[in-house]
Amino acid sequence: MYVIMVYDIEVNRVGKVLKIGRKYLTWVQNSVLEGELTNSQFQSLLIELKDILDEEKDSVVFYLFRTKAYFKRQVVGIDKNEPSQFL
Amino acid sequence: MYVIMVYDIEVNRVGKVLKIGRKYLTWVQNSVLEGELTNSQFQSLLIELKDILDEEKDSVVFYLFRTKAYFKRQVVGIDKNEPSQFL
Repeated sequence: MYVIMVYDIEVNRVGKVLKIGRKYLTWVQNSVLEGELTNSQFQSLLIELKDILDEEKDSVVFYLFRTKAYFKRQVVGIDKNEPSQFL
Repeated sequence: MYVIMVYDIEVNRVGKVLKIGRKYLTWVQNSVLEGELTNSQFQSLLIELKDILDEEKDSVVFYLFRTKAYFKRQVVGIDKNEPSQFL
């Protein structure tokens, strides 16, 4: 399945969330990651996140799709995760 | 069409972007809005945003779907835009 992860985390935990997120997904821009995951990978991501989140204060929203074909992505301004960024 | 808007904006413009975004979409959490738009509404939103963005520094990513049925939304932690938040 294709996953978009957006997060709104207190500053003292945001670095850890990004580190965990990047193990599974590609960074798109501030607070947003995307990528293809199996169901078990997604479950592992959830477990790791729940270990460090304060579920009373932090918020992570996942948008889950069966396939990337279901949406079109349109960028205004710079596309911060363009492959050329990493050459 | 259903629209998810995520944005990564320099601090001096982020208030304006949020104000414009909220005219068309529902705030979900920091840097994320969602909602149903017609194509012309989406074009109007783009025009208003392009008026204020610095396209060399700012980044707005839109995920566009024909219908909301194409994805499932899963929240870990608090769901910041839960209707009860506004009672």
